[in-house]
Amino acid sequence: MTSSRSRIHRLRLAISGLRADALLVTHLPNIQYLCGFSGSAAILLVEPGRSTLFTDSRYTFQAREEVFGARIHIAKRGLLRAAGEALRDLSRRRARFWAAYSPEHLTVAQKEVLQAAAGSRIRWITDKSAVEKLRAVKDADELAVMREAAGIVSEVFRGLLRAIKTGVSELSLAAKIEYDIKRRGGSGPSFDTIVASGPRAAWAHARPTAKLLRKNELVVLDQGAILRGYCSDMTRTVFLGRASRRVRRLYNAVLEAQQAAKAAIRPGVKACDVDRAARDILKRYGLARYFTHSLGHGLGLEVHEMPRLGRGETTILQEGMVLTVEPGVYIEGLGGIRIEDDVLVGPNGCADLTTAPREFLEL
Amino acid sequence: MTSSRSRIHRLRLAISGLRADALLVTHLPNIQYLCGFSGSAAILLVEPGRSTLFTDSRYTFQAREEVFGARIHIAKRGLLRAAGEALRDLSRRRARFWAAYSPEHLTVAQKEVLQAAAGSRIRWITDKSAVEKLRAVKDADELAVMREAAGIVSEVFRGLLRAIKTGVSELSLAAKIEYDIKRRGGSGPSFDTIVASGPRAAWAHARPTAKLLRKNELVVLDQGAILRGYCSDMTRTVFLGRASRRVRRLYNAVLEAQQAAKAAIRPGVKACDVDRAARDILKRYGLARYFTHSLGHGLGLEVHEMPRLGRGETTILQEGMVLTVEPGVYIEGLGGIRIEDDVLVGPNGCADLTTAPREFLEL
Repeated sequence: MTSSRSRIHRLRLAISGLRADALLVTHLPNIQYLCGFSGSAAILLVEPGRSTLFTDSRYTFQAREEVFGARIHIAKRGLLRAAGEALRDLSRRRARFWAAYSPEHLTVAQKEVLQAAAGSRIRWITDKSAVEKLRAVKDADELAVMREAAGIVSEVFRGLLRAIKTGVSELSLAAKIEYDIKRRGGSGPSFDTIVASGPRAAWAHARPTAKLLRKNELVVLDQGAILRGYCSDMTRTVFLGRASRRVRRLYNAVLEAQQAAKAAIRPGVKACDVDRAARDILKRYGLARYFTHSLGHGLGLEVHEMPRLGRGETTILQEGMVLTVEPGVYIEGLGGIRIEDDVLVGPNGCADLTTAPREFLEL
Repeated sequence: MTSSRSRIHRLRLAISGLRADALLVTHLPNIQYLCGFSGSAAILLVEPGRSTLFTDSRYTFQAREEVFGARIHIAKRGLLRAAGEALRDLSRRRARFWAAYSPEHLTVAQKEVLQAAAGSRIRWITDKSAVEKLRAVKDADELAVMREAAGIVSEVFRGLLRAIKTGVSELSLAAKIEYDIKRRGGSGPSFDTIVASGPRAAWAHARPTAKLLRKNELVVLDQGAILRGYCSDMTRTVFLGRASRRVRRLYNAVLEAQQAAKAAIRPGVKACDVDRAARDILKRYGLARYFTHSLGHGLGLEVHEMPRLGRGETTILQEGMVLTVEPGVYIEGLGGIRIEDDVLVGPNGCADLTTAPREFLEL
């Protein structure tokens, strides 16, 4: 992959914007993005002229296979200590050395170990999500994988439709979804699959239980696949039996809100304006107060990443961003309806990556 | 559950040992242990006379259902801020107020928010794993669940034996294991299931790949179930075809090392002495250098918790601890062999919780 080189190059431009002499990357998805390493213990030190990946002896072989654009340092007495000592060595040539790090991705205890090893010449400065900002815009390699990850989850849902029926438990449907994701080549679910039926569908973060699906219930199914590190995330809501006019109207309002939000997406638009496009439709139906979360979020190596689509979010959308668009309404006693797709911001608008049917399904 | 009351009571004794006026618990498994809450956003503030759980509006219903022994505070503008403000209020009555927290379970960014909200009267002191130490010794309720979680994974492995054959991929076996865990009532795997075959079995932390199982290969299968929050963790190694004398001897050496370690376990023994019992056997076979990790770890609400069974670990084993015992040898080119059980430290020795066959299986 030549993309690792260009990613580290773009990051170096970002570092010089920070006026830092080096950037210490401690968040694993950022490390995977920059140099390809997917192990569970790593720190990446990015200097203007070179980069070093610190990992431990469990990952000697894997690092040799995966890492690109960085040299590998197998730490014998802890990664933080090794990275700190490398900073100390760098600072020897200088009166002062500015090291940027992300306080969101380092515990207080880790910072203490790092600081003790790095010594007093190091001046610590805060990195404001330099790597996360790069990650928000996907390159062609990433988009190819994300299309495939979205395809897996769309196919899994189509295959599941026959299995969604009365008498089946939420847990067994969730287990089937996660099994089918792996059978289709995904390495696993990108988050704990949600299957919530009846009144439980009104909990936006319900975990599946042994509850059986019953007639005349809404069922919310929220599922995602990981493929070669990249996530998909899709929600569909179906009804068991013949729905009342009220439920049908609720469903159509949420679908219309989703369509309005998708129509508002294009490069140059503010994230909060897309959120508002959906919220305005729900307001027109008197449903705004039931839409209790934000409209969506960026998606990539993490299932929630930059940008967030919500009130007060001033991020400007750019071509190449991948977002979820997931309006929902949640009414205590009745249940919930959420419709969620993954979309790509294209030059003139957005394109769906997830493709499972969106029309109201009565099963 | 009356156990929550007695857990918080024992914790209060620990806090008075710390000379703290309050303890802020930020690690989710610790919170679940102390007050039953299993949501993904929470802080528990334990004072001498009362406890408060801070969570957000997504968890209003769930907190009401689950929480025991603590009042519930639904935070509107962030948990850390709410918990910090509560500390500030407490500190008003005092010249100085000592708050204990765990630097392992708070990021630098979170600490800043907390500190700003709590104000300058608060003196911060470090909690040295007070809750983790309580958690290491399981009570009767916990042991009943852990026995069941170990039973699930043992049954899953027995059912899997027919499916382990040449031409099957590592990934599909891992998917089947995780599906069967859920079919038997587990809420999911307690870690990413490992299925590693042939030379890949020499990687102690291999992830399953699309590689197909071939004749004359070792296959390491490491799997665990979560049941009502509690983890199991079991490894078995099988051979496809008729094994050479060398492989058979390696297997028997690892099994003997495991038996020696189990025989060494009883209350009052040091953790490092159990590790050494296994290492001494492997040394006798000239295999000590291939045993590249520690012998085992505590198990409970987390798949790795206190105590660790390894070199230099001076923790004294106590009745009621649950441990993994997992010696292994890893030889580049040939593959790896690991045998792992979950055991309970009883009054006179240890008892196996996992029960799948340990004899050498040629499939």
